[in-house]
Amino acid sequence: MDIINVETTGVLGFVDQASIDALKDVGNKALRKLIDGTGVGNDYIGWVNLPQHISGELLDDISATAAQLRSRCEVVVAIGIGGSYLGAKAIIEALSNTFSAYTNNANTKVLFAGQNIGEDYLYELQDFLRDKQFGIIVISKSGTTTEPAIAFRLLKEQLEQQVGVDEARKRIVAITDAKKGALRSLTVTEGYKSFVIADNIGGRFSVLTPVGLLPIAVAGFDIHALIKGAADMAKLSLSGQNDCAMTYALTRNTLYRSGKKIEILVNYNPKLHSVGEWWKQLYGESEGKDGKGIFPASVDNTTDLHSMGQWIQDGERTVFETVISVAAPENELRIPTDKENLDGLNYLAGKRVDEVNKMAELGTRIAHIDGGVPNIKISLPCISPYYLGQLIYFFEVACGISGYILGVNPFNQPGVEGYKRNMFALLEKPGYEKESNAIKAKLK
Amino acid sequence: MDIINVETTGVLGFVDQASIDALKDVGNKALRKLIDGTGVGNDYIGWVNLPQHISGELLDDISATAAQLRSRCEVVVAIGIGGSYLGAKAIIEALSNTFSAYTNNANTKVLFAGQNIGEDYLYELQDFLRDKQFGIIVISKSGTTTEPAIAFRLLKEQLEQQVGVDEARKRIVAITDAKKGALRSLTVTEGYKSFVIADNIGGRFSVLTPVGLLPIAVAGFDIHALIKGAADMAKLSLSGQNDCAMTYALTRNTLYRSGKKIEILVNYNPKLHSVGEWWKQLYGESEGKDGKGIFPASVDNTTDLHSMGQWIQDGERTVFETVISVAAPENELRIPTDKENLDGLNYLAGKRVDEVNKMAELGTRIAHIDGGVPNIKISLPCISPYYLGQLIYFFEVACGISGYILGVNPFNQPGVEGYKRNMFALLEKPGYEKESNAIKAKLK
Repeated sequence: MDIINVETTGVLGFVDQASIDALKDVGNKALRKLIDGTGVGNDYIGWVNLPQHISGELLDDISATAAQLRSRCEVVVAIGIGGSYLGAKAIIEALSNTFSAYTNNANTKVLFAGQNIGEDYLYELQDFLRDKQFGIIVISKSGTTTEPAIAFRLLKEQLEQQVGVDEARKRIVAITDAKKGALRSLTVTEGYKSFVIADNIGGRFSVLTPVGLLPIAVAGFDIHALIKGAADMAKLSLSGQNDCAMTYALTRNTLYRSGKKIEILVNYNPKLHSVGEWWKQLYGESEGKDGKGIFPASVDNTTDLHSMGQWIQDGERTVFETVISVAAPENELRIPTDKENLDGLNYLAGKRVDEVNKMAELGTRIAHIDGGVPNIKISLPCISPYYLGQLIYFFEVACGISGYILGVNPFNQPGVEGYKRNMFALLEKPGYEKESNAIKAKLK
Repeated sequence: MDIINVETTGVLGFVDQASIDALKDVGNKALRKLIDGTGVGNDYIGWVNLPQHISGELLDDISATAAQLRSRCEVVVAIGIGGSYLGAKAIIEALSNTFSAYTNNANTKVLFAGQNIGEDYLYELQDFLRDKQFGIIVISKSGTTTEPAIAFRLLKEQLEQQVGVDEARKRIVAITDAKKGALRSLTVTEGYKSFVIADNIGGRFSVLTPVGLLPIAVAGFDIHALIKGAADMAKLSLSGQNDCAMTYALTRNTLYRSGKKIEILVNYNPKLHSVGEWWKQLYGESEGKDGKGIFPASVDNTTDLHSMGQWIQDGERTVFETVISVAAPENELRIPTDKENLDGLNYLAGKRVDEVNKMAELGTRIAHIDGGVPNIKISLPCISPYYLGQLIYFFEVACGISGYILGVNPFNQPGVEGYKRNMFALLEKPGYEKESNAIKAKLK
């Protein structure tokens, strides 16, 4: 069984090993804080020991619930936003056939809602669901977050109209607070099957809880293997047997201190696109505060070499790249010979497509380093539930270490409240009368 | 008929109007260079007068060719990369029903290939197409660009096997150089229907040429209206009757000079997601050179307020936002009343979903400006072919002006060659023997 690997030789023309090593002490102290729970934000580090200790009964319950939904529904809509959306989407997309949306088969499809307030999005979703056997997973700690609450209000009503209240109850699963809040109350009243959002795990660290696991299981993927991968990575990272998370955290902080302000997460397999989106929340929300933090961006290559590639090669020299390199594709496809050879590709005939992709990756690495872009390489043996589990935990623990090195609380997100407060004031939400008057005066 | 509007009051707490106005002279000179063709890169400004002068015959020919493909094919694969991919994808996605991929109807679906070298992507695409009536639009100036050439070699062979060589010829349309190159030769030999990629229009400015128009027409959208919108915007912008492109170009350069290094293009309608991707190529590739240029990023809100929102609100103060605000959604959906009101949403009952979305947008604008993020607002009356045509031309002409103000050649992309040269050397492409030896020595 392989372990994902982190290689940092591609940064050494920009920062020296001694500068990276100089952060080791603070890095080790950061890891110790995560293990001992002695750092800031320590009321939100339930994710640290989660994969090692999640119970087999809970995983079996999630799997059984997923099977129940799959047996009743062609489509399950997972309602949630932020960490209650991005993790499940990332893993489902990574493991799915690229064209599964276009394919009619018996596999239950997972769609998402409550991640925006798009009137067209919700209208078209309701229209699409009108002749479908559908179910709902509603994910919200409080049950009152605006985006998911609007989506759930609309879809619950629609489902009850389409199949009746009794059947709807069997097709709605709530993931919410253990005891309090609007969604817990409704769950008790209606008798929905439910799972608990723990108090000590923030949204962006929740993909390995029922928040991520239930949608992933409904899509038909192996959550036991996902957890196993994460647990193996946790054991190795927390014990210090494997230092890849530490290496990543130290290296990116060293680059940041040297003036590299933007980190681009790069993939060469489009299935990892939404892993980039998940990663952007994990790092952006954990570190972007107090006027500091690396700006996280992502690209899908080779696609974006013909888009962002020019800027990366020749623009401001304030950027570094972290490449997720997948060693082996799932399928095998070779480039055919063509007797005319007008396109001049016969020199590649018989090669696997991935061999060309790998040379594009290596060629880009060399070109970008030559052009002034440091390169960190994360190697993933293949895209499977097990290795995605490793990757998730790797990024999570590295994020905790990295945020502590940066000197922020990596587990809060005070900046997310700003727009919400203004929105409530503008919408004249009960309880926001004072803010409402203030914002109206400001807009005059 | 409305015109898109640009509002810059949200930047005035950060840069003053006098600083913006101070760039007017250089901005007007830049526009003059585009009109007169006297600036650097003037061999690539064929897009400036394209929408006003594109012939009705060409548009009718594109429409007729699209109708022909639609009548024969359930699926048409558009093969291209960079500007031969992003423009069509952006417009098709903006105009499509969000869930059209999941819907079985008679409308021909447009898929994309040749925009990556993913072995799984191509394998799964070929597998998907095996029982489909499909066709191909192959877009390549030379016919030898690696990504599209590999995809076309694979799919041409497959199509010929599935329907025979004669029928395949009727289902393949080439968009390529007028006279030279591998794809032109093949087109002549096989007798494919073809369109011309002009010598004086670069890829990222090509969406209003057959490169973008044919896939858009195959997807069923009105290319005449798209061109009309662009032509109206061209007339107004080039004559100075409308200064929104000038305002945008001056403002973003002023912000850049004041230390705002990252521009985030923001939408509040997920259908505009790929417009953001298209815009990133347009600006990143035009301006990211000579060690300078704004770093272009994009977010979909309110989704990403729960992801990148924290960084934008509280991270390094080196960012500004450009919001595309769509005045009117296409559909109407109101928030229902709920007699229990456990979620506390009854204060919104009866309101359109978009009213809430608009207050999220306004609340975010205020919160981000308060937090140190300048805000440019681009208002689009609605998402339609006509207004998307306006938007495309607006961004194109603003980009030309902006690049000249920055002092670069906005129409070349020398940095894109770096990875290609290394890739060919690593793959031992004939003619790259010297580079091949050099790179092998380097890797030892």
